[in-house]
Amino acid sequence: MRTQVGIVGAGPAGLLLSQLLSLQGIESVVLERRSRDYVERRVRAGVLEHGTVQTLREAGVAKRLDEEGLVHDGLNVRFAGHTHRLDLADLVGRGVTVYGQQEVVKDLIAARLDAGGDLRFEIAETALHDLDGQRPRITFVEKDAAGELDCDFVVGADGFHGISRQHVPGRTEYEHTYPYAWLGILADAPPALPEVVYARHPRGFALHSMRSPAVARLYLQVAPDEDLAEWPDERIWAELRRRLGDDEGFRLTEGTVLDKGITPMRSFVSAPMQHGRLLLAGDAAHIVPPTGAKGMNLAVADVRLLSRALGAFYLGGRTDLLAAYTETALRRVWRATHFSWWMTSMLHRAPDENPFTERLATAQLDWVVSSRSMATALAENYTGLPYEQDWSYR
Amino acid sequence: MRTQVGIVGAGPAGLLLSQLLSLQGIESVVLERRSRDYVERRVRAGVLEHGTVQTLREAGVAKRLDEEGLVHDGLNVRFAGHTHRLDLADLVGRGVTVYGQQEVVKDLIAARLDAGGDLRFEIAETALHDLDGQRPRITFVEKDAAGELDCDFVVGADGFHGISRQHVPGRTEYEHTYPYAWLGILADAPPALPEVVYARHPRGFALHSMRSPAVARLYLQVAPDEDLAEWPDERIWAELRRRLGDDEGFRLTEGTVLDKGITPMRSFVSAPMQHGRLLLAGDAAHIVPPTGAKGMNLAVADVRLLSRALGAFYLGGRTDLLAAYTETALRRVWRATHFSWWMTSMLHRAPDENPFTERLATAQLDWVVSSRSMATALAENYTGLPYEQDWSYR
Repeated sequence: MRTQVGIVGAGPAGLLLSQLLSLQGIESVVLERRSRDYVERRVRAGVLEHGTVQTLREAGVAKRLDEEGLVHDGLNVRFAGHTHRLDLADLVGRGVTVYGQQEVVKDLIAARLDAGGDLRFEIAETALHDLDGQRPRITFVEKDAAGELDCDFVVGADGFHGISRQHVPGRTEYEHTYPYAWLGILADAPPALPEVVYARHPRGFALHSMRSPAVARLYLQVAPDEDLAEWPDERIWAELRRRLGDDEGFRLTEGTVLDKGITPMRSFVSAPMQHGRLLLAGDAAHIVPPTGAKGMNLAVADVRLLSRALGAFYLGGRTDLLAAYTETALRRVWRATHFSWWMTSMLHRAPDENPFTERLATAQLDWVVSSRSMATALAENYTGLPYEQDWSYR
Repeated sequence: MRTQVGIVGAGPAGLLLSQLLSLQGIESVVLERRSRDYVERRVRAGVLEHGTVQTLREAGVAKRLDEEGLVHDGLNVRFAGHTHRLDLADLVGRGVTVYGQQEVVKDLIAARLDAGGDLRFEIAETALHDLDGQRPRITFVEKDAAGELDCDFVVGADGFHGISRQHVPGRTEYEHTYPYAWLGILADAPPALPEVVYARHPRGFALHSMRSPAVARLYLQVAPDEDLAEWPDERIWAELRRRLGDDEGFRLTEGTVLDKGITPMRSFVSAPMQHGRLLLAGDAAHIVPPTGAKGMNLAVADVRLLSRALGAFYLGGRTDLLAAYTETALRRVWRATHFSWWMTSMLHRAPDENPFTERLATAQLDWVVSSRSMATALAENYTGLPYEQDWSYR
């Protein structure tokens, strides 16, 4: 079996790349370890940057997103007993769209299959070979039969736990583990406010978000080793009420808890993001903590670069964009890594917090809500940095 | 002996307050532990915010400052081998002025004495009494004779090690000690660049500043317990060359070392800043690390508030500004405390730095030099936040 680009992983990164390559007439095959049903139900991020939405439109997979996505032109920051709204549209002329990652995945799978794309699920024992040469290969097992895929390029979009990254020799892995986690619930309850609320409270961070006008997504900062069994629904609601406040017209709407889980918080960057004919995209190369919702958006940014670089190779015989992929991608990855770290550390209570660091965090939040430039700087990152490396202010 | 406002300390805060009160016809006496010669030679900060310069002009003590001060419309940030200029004038329409604190002190002393002001130096055993009542008193020893000063108000402008702060019962002291110090030299050498260079280097922070067109002020990050004896001049120059670089036209000018010392780095805020008829100003209430040069500027901001509040009391019979002093002053103090901490932590190498935090710092600096809003946010703080609490962007 032969294709131009072999893609490992049918998450948003792998699927979107396959779609964008297809639009340029470049063939690909996507190999996924899990079942279609599993990847379509995997609940992850839910906030799309402005540019992510644009990219999905360009990819022709935004029909349902445009109908069902919730456009947010602002966000709320709550601290010291007050809620402050940042008007993203006013600050930077763009907002974000709330639309679940699993919905993006469903739309991409449907589009690929409609177009006759080759997506294979439940693929086992995937292994990469000959990445240093011109003809890399992927071997795998599909329904108990051995398979082999000859490619020009292999794209590793198989997530943090995937096998692809291991094939980049001499890589540097930058890692940071945060001393807290998120306990998240999905609740059958209309959101109390139409826009997201990020709250810093002396008892810890809380986040009020939503998946639809009828379903709220709520999070609480907890210890990294927190036992979910210690958190019956009533305790979760009581703690959310306490941290999110119930003043200034904000009254938490409660409802049946549909889902409950604990998310660890980690930052991770592996560099370089390529080796020979192997190129990494998304979580395979970098992980951010969920604060700021950068994970899927970073994957989309990587894929845009790869789509253009591979397009330039096949359609224009150029190798320069491919050669520059790591450098181009990493500048934006590091900015998003810093932004996610900054949002996280500003909004969470560190275990070693003391009265000085607590006041410092409040003063930092005061900076964000009182200086239009600082609010703009946050909004630029939150709604998404430009894709091209031309964002220097000079 | 009797006056309206008894001021403890003849640093910039105490002297400027005395001058501003005098312009409103309010009497004061300034009591200083050290000699006039000592306070006029004490080398401290050297960067004046735009508003500090305006205030000194309003106080009628800016003649020499306007002649000799070096107006800087920009500053340089150096990291990852490149120097980036932030154009303060372009970003926020104002710059800063380089003029030594001891020069400000000389100008203020001269002005007070010219106007017949009562400044007393070499005052011992200063003690505060009856601060809860309407007639607080200061007792002291002057040339071996006991003295007593009856006042309406006592202003404690006697610095971090002064006695005044101890008279605020139930105060909270917020404190942070940084895991590094500054080794500073004053050198008989023309500055290599006309504007300040803040450098982050894998070996630690370095700062290239100046006191005049002929005298450079240079700093190196060192350990908090660094032994100055281990730093002969040649080692200092070599380390400065390494951290500040010698590319892109920057070549460090060397010269005779006129002064050499180690400055510890500390953040400190004591709240409230008043009790009864005692009001604290400047270092008596708060300390910042030198990065960002906020120390004297914060003292000037406190004094502006006090001058207006005391003016409103004596000339308008109003007590509301006095009552609000702590709250009004502290919001700006905490912003400057955060700014100083932020500049410090962004530019220094922490002892527990690892490859992740090093990249994070670079990404943060990349934010500052690549986003006009972020550069503006820095410039707003560096050149000085507004004095009044109206800087919210809405």
